[in-house]
Amino acid sequence: MINDRPYEEIKIGEQASFSKTITEADIVGFAGLTGDFNPIHVDNAFAEKSIFKGRIAHGMLTGAFISTVLGTALPGKNTVYMSQEMKFVAPAYIGDTLTATVEVINKRDDKRILELKTTVTNQAEKEVVIGQAKVMKLKD
Amino acid sequence: MINDRPYEEIKIGEQASFSKTITEADIVGFAGLTGDFNPIHVDNAFAEKSIFKGRIAHGMLTGAFISTVLGTALPGKNTVYMSQEMKFVAPAYIGDTLTATVEVINKRDDKRILELKTTVTNQAEKEVVIGQAKVMKLKD
Amino acid sequence: MINDRPYEEIKIGEQASFSKTITEADIVGFAGLTGDFNPIHVDNAFAEKSIFKGRIAHGMLTGAFISTVLGTALPGKNTVYMSQEMKFVAPAYIGDTLTATVEVINKRDDKRILELKTTVTNQAEKEVVIGQAKVMKLKD
Amino acid sequence: MINDRPYEEIKIGEQASFSKTITEADIVGFAGLTGDFNPIHVDNAFAEKSIFKGRIAHGMLTGAFISTVLGTALPGKNTVYMSQEMKFVAPAYIGDTLTATVEVINKRDDKRILELKTTVTNQAEKEVVIGQAKVMKLKD
Repeated sequence: MINDRPYEEIKIGEQASFSKTITEADIVGFAGLTGDFNPIHVDNAFAEKSIFKGRIAHGMLTGAFISTVLGTALPGKNTVYMSQEMKFVAPAYIGDTLTATVEVINKRDDKRILELKTTVTNQAEKEVVIGQAKVMKLKD
Repeated sequence: MINDRPYEEIKIGEQASFSKTITEADIVGFAGLTGDFNPIHVDNAFAEKSIFKGRIAHGMLTGAFISTVLGTALPGKNTVYMSQEMKFVAPAYIGDTLTATVEVINKRDDKRILELKTTVTNQAEKEVVIGQAKVMKLKD
Repeated sequence: MINDRPYEEIKIGEQASFSKTITEADIVGFAGLTGDFNPIHVDNAFAEKSIFKGRIAHGMLTGAFISTVLGTALPGKNTVYMSQEMKFVAPAYIGDTLTATVEVINKRDDKRILELKTTVTNQAEKEVVIGQAKVMKLKD
Repeated sequence: MINDRPYEEIKIGEQASFSKTITEADIVGFAGLTGDFNPIHVDNAFAEKSIFKGRIAHGMLTGAFISTVLGTALPGKNTVYMSQEMKFVAPAYIGDTLTATVEVINKRDDKRILELKTTVTNQAEKEVVIGQAKVMKLKD
């Protein structure tokens, strides 16, 4: 479902989220789309001997679920993505269930711009990605 | 190829880049991995009537090629992605060829951290994404 | 965004929909998942000489967008898909934008069952799939 | 193999089937093609707490193997899919091996139409999908 929140109705403090389990297919699929075949993502023999002890999802894949929330839920349709800052603070492994949450922290009414706190956590409520986004909500 | 640049050899000013043409399959694939089915990406009838006049790539997909350069070329293997800031300054359309370039702008030797300017441009050399990344280069 | 409409609030006549452009990648992807490599879907040389004059999407792919609406919008979360009847009344080609719409036509409160009219149309508002679905909306 | 059964030779009672194991990659792939990211399919943390006790395949994915049999085996090439009725009577889990079977139950010679009983069972011979299909077999 693609939400279409009118700019005027969006309140500071409003939140939305999206959850998905990271699968091996997601990681190889993301490597295939982007060309990022770093062995920590696609070479299990290498990854098991690394400090991560196994393959991890690309940081950009874990962060991409923020885009999913912005583009489908808050504000959804007619959103222009202006910027995204992310700190990758913990790895995400195959089988982890990630939840991306966005929270409106500021509105700039003259330009219809929203500033949002953007966080991705895992099933243990550990933060995986923290940061901020800026989007413009176009008129319909 | 997965490069493995030793931290000590990396110079400030050093650059690397990666290019790929954005295809329709990339956009529907990225929507499928992330769940971001915003109509500007997957609904051509909607997108043609929008201010963009056609389907555009997800900002996060255009930015993901930065991860590709960091993870495969500079510094490549044994890189830990710490943070990424991106401004999405122009849309990328199906058929556009994007080039992601990273340039080392600072080194913090005590923590083996690199700061990089990260830019994605299209075939007309127009900037699509601008920003900065921070990575740690582990010892082998 | 995954909606979660409470059974009690759902009204007869309520509608929801989802739109996506059918791409070549969708058709080959669907063939790959299901094994349905009928030449009308994956053999362009054959399809161009057929009565359809080109490759068409699998009927089941065009109908699958009904599942998308039921599973993400109406009723969304905690939905059990009980049955689906579909008539495939027109072909969908690469580039067609399909819109799946569901409309609640009956409620059976004792079992929390909804009956819905399910329709898929193309960008010219021509019907591609017509039919009915039955779902049960579980309590949270 | 794509079969090409001549209409005239097809007998009432004739059967064909197709088997495939449902993998995690199939389910995330189907979600990605259709946009149906209902958490029962893609959110393992949610699914484990649900009445299903784990992620299940989309009903439409389990039913899609019927299309595979119709489109590749009976009658195969030059088949026009007219309608499909499905009851989703049991869930299919990651690792289940599904077998879709079609059986001709009626022929309407004037229009070259076949009516078929369509059943999908799992490795324990439990019915997952039951229903009927109608197809037209074109002349070559």
